[in-house]
Amino acid sequence: MALIVQKYGGTSVADPDRMKAVAENVAYTKRHGNDVVVVVSAMGKATDNLIALANSVSSTQPGRELDMLLTTGERVSMALLCMALADIGVDAMSFTGSQVGIITDTAHGKAKILEVKGDRAREALQQGKVCVVAGFQGVSTDKEITTLGRGGSDTTAVALAAALDADACEIYTDVTGVFSADPRMVPQARKLAKINFDEMLEMAGAGSKVLALRSVEFARNHNVPLHVRSSFTWEPGTWVTSEEPSMEDPIISGVVTDVSEAKVTVLGVPDQPGVSAALFEPLAARNVNVDMIVQNTSTEGHTDISFTVPRSDLKVAQEVVAQVAVQIEAKGVTHDNDIAKVSLVGAGMKTSPGIAAKMFRTLADEGVNIEMISTSTIRISVVVAASDVELAARSLHTAFGLDSGQAYSAPLPERK
Amino acid sequence: MALIVQKYGGTSVADPDRMKAVAENVAYTKRHGNDVVVVVSAMGKATDNLIALANSVSSTQPGRELDMLLTTGERVSMALLCMALADIGVDAMSFTGSQVGIITDTAHGKAKILEVKGDRAREALQQGKVCVVAGFQGVSTDKEITTLGRGGSDTTAVALAAALDADACEIYTDVTGVFSADPRMVPQARKLAKINFDEMLEMAGAGSKVLALRSVEFARNHNVPLHVRSSFTWEPGTWVTSEEPSMEDPIISGVVTDVSEAKVTVLGVPDQPGVSAALFEPLAARNVNVDMIVQNTSTEGHTDISFTVPRSDLKVAQEVVAQVAVQIEAKGVTHDNDIAKVSLVGAGMKTSPGIAAKMFRTLADEGVNIEMISTSTIRISVVVAASDVELAARSLHTAFGLDSGQAYSAPLPERK
Repeated sequence: MALIVQKYGGTSVADPDRMKAVAENVAYTKRHGNDVVVVVSAMGKATDNLIALANSVSSTQPGRELDMLLTTGERVSMALLCMALADIGVDAMSFTGSQVGIITDTAHGKAKILEVKGDRAREALQQGKVCVVAGFQGVSTDKEITTLGRGGSDTTAVALAAALDADACEIYTDVTGVFSADPRMVPQARKLAKINFDEMLEMAGAGSKVLALRSVEFARNHNVPLHVRSSFTWEPGTWVTSEEPSMEDPIISGVVTDVSEAKVTVLGVPDQPGVSAALFEPLAARNVNVDMIVQNTSTEGHTDISFTVPRSDLKVAQEVVAQVAVQIEAKGVTHDNDIAKVSLVGAGMKTSPGIAAKMFRTLADEGVNIEMISTSTIRISVVVAASDVELAARSLHTAFGLDSGQAYSAPLPERK
Repeated sequence: MALIVQKYGGTSVADPDRMKAVAENVAYTKRHGNDVVVVVSAMGKATDNLIALANSVSSTQPGRELDMLLTTGERVSMALLCMALADIGVDAMSFTGSQVGIITDTAHGKAKILEVKGDRAREALQQGKVCVVAGFQGVSTDKEITTLGRGGSDTTAVALAAALDADACEIYTDVTGVFSADPRMVPQARKLAKINFDEMLEMAGAGSKVLALRSVEFARNHNVPLHVRSSFTWEPGTWVTSEEPSMEDPIISGVVTDVSEAKVTVLGVPDQPGVSAALFEPLAARNVNVDMIVQNTSTEGHTDISFTVPRSDLKVAQEVVAQVAVQIEAKGVTHDNDIAKVSLVGAGMKTSPGIAAKMFRTLADEGVNIEMISTSTIRISVVVAASDVELAARSLHTAFGLDSGQAYSAPLPERK
């Protein structure tokens, strides 16, 4: 008998009809001989509504109280799902993060999971019950209710799957899987049948929103096979596993675009030790989320440093950099809001030389200017003008053989 | 320094503006030198909305899951109130029923409080904090989340006040206090400045909705002074205490009306031992809430037994009685939906003869026919035709000197 952890996101349980559809899928999985642990998010816009309520009563929101408020959303979902399951004859039992033993640190709003006990879930499973667990929440070492921050329910699901030694963790969402590019931008994009953890991590880092980075890291570290799929069509989605690509697999898995960032450049920085630290420490202290950082070789003792930040952080970043630039005697600071990041991700890159060259040639042929370049072993990212992002993504998708009429045919990992 | 427990009902925290007004009142109480423990209900129609959601996903609602669902309403309220308090500089901390140690039995949906630990509340109070506690909920001896049933938040407040040895328990609601009659029925009704526990119990039993019977019983048993008042006008309300009435107090405190019941009469019952048990045991087994029971002296070995039940229970009651009537060889069964119960309540009755006679004469003078009579030491209830209820209530209110232009002038109990 296999143990399947299923996670349903907010759109999957947005209203009573969707909730009942989820219950049917849980029942189906259970009746086909699997043990099932379900992790649920808050219904649709429930969390947003709670945040709006909080904003309307207070501009001071102690983290402990905000966490207590927000965790009610998942509790509503889990209780309703258990009722819907009872209605169709499935014996289910709900557990809060605290009840199932998801122990976190004390950082309200962005708590990290320290340990998953899972005793009550194991007990319920042994009694033949389906376990329904509230996502996004835990209990701290101080016995306070905490939330795990963005993508928290994915993390709950993966952590539970690891602790319970589940055979797979299904992440149900409103898209049918991980795509070779954003289909809204690249019409020829196709769903990937499989991808490995490192590629998925790079995709998440490059701006893909399908899975939260933390949950993929957790899945990789504990080797939990993920299956990203749709609760609207129920078709097979994308498997994310530790499997290394074989010879027949394509070198590039996908093109990832991110139009949410802005670029800051510090000009004429003296090329001496400690300058980068002087720049990025105060940014970190102000919680500015720096993404790409590029520094060129210096000429005549000076260099330029460029970096990208979420557009929402740009104002703070400019303030910080303006001060630092004076201290380090830089020659000036510029910024650019109208940029986009385009990344190629593929585990095959490690063994295939010339990918970067081909990428730059493709963009040059289309007249797309490259403003910044950054690479990892399985990813190449470039920053281009925002107006070029679709052209860049489509031309790369075609050039690297990702366009295809038919679904990718690699075999699915077998369910035990 | 006094310790005040304040309970705010659903209408008192129905929206962000009301929530902020509540925060101001808590701050006012705290800044006037009191320790404050606040008990909150769910916002406005929140509980009704959760029940509607449950009904829309399931007709099978396991008690454990329904309790988990419903308790989220009070958690939202308490977290929001703590945020609103933080905004105006009041250091507050929220506690669920479980966190504050409200230990109940395992009867989901109608759990009884077995013990109030209150350790975390005491600790927070010692640190100078306001404690905000979720009403209506506890944790069972099986470690499951439970709800206390109807009027549960009042009970939470009174139980906490008793456990923490509070100086008073203020029950904030949408009326300004306990009235000498329902003002919608008797325009001359006036707010009572004080009333004692026994009178309040009789009023609740006779149909007054201001305080839940359970919470008054709890307050009497633990001698917790209650102050029923409005969170809309904030004016002084009605004190409910153990104080016995003095010579100057009126004999009658109020007229209570109840139009929610129906009457069943079993005719020609053989007057022999065991007949009443044969009738009322099966009603209890079907959870029919029997209120008044009247049996006349028998004539020629037969008697009639009448009783009242909530109208919602009438159908079940008729089924049960129809069967029993055959077994006990009664001559027939009748029922009447169009009745009303009118009660006079007053602790002074114990020492004042002739109240019943005056009541019956008043009703006779108005041409109101009395169908049933039942008395306790401080209450006389009569059943009349539903169409006579306003006439009966008004004439009794006048006859017993309750009409008055000016507020009743007895001194308020001093706040220490």
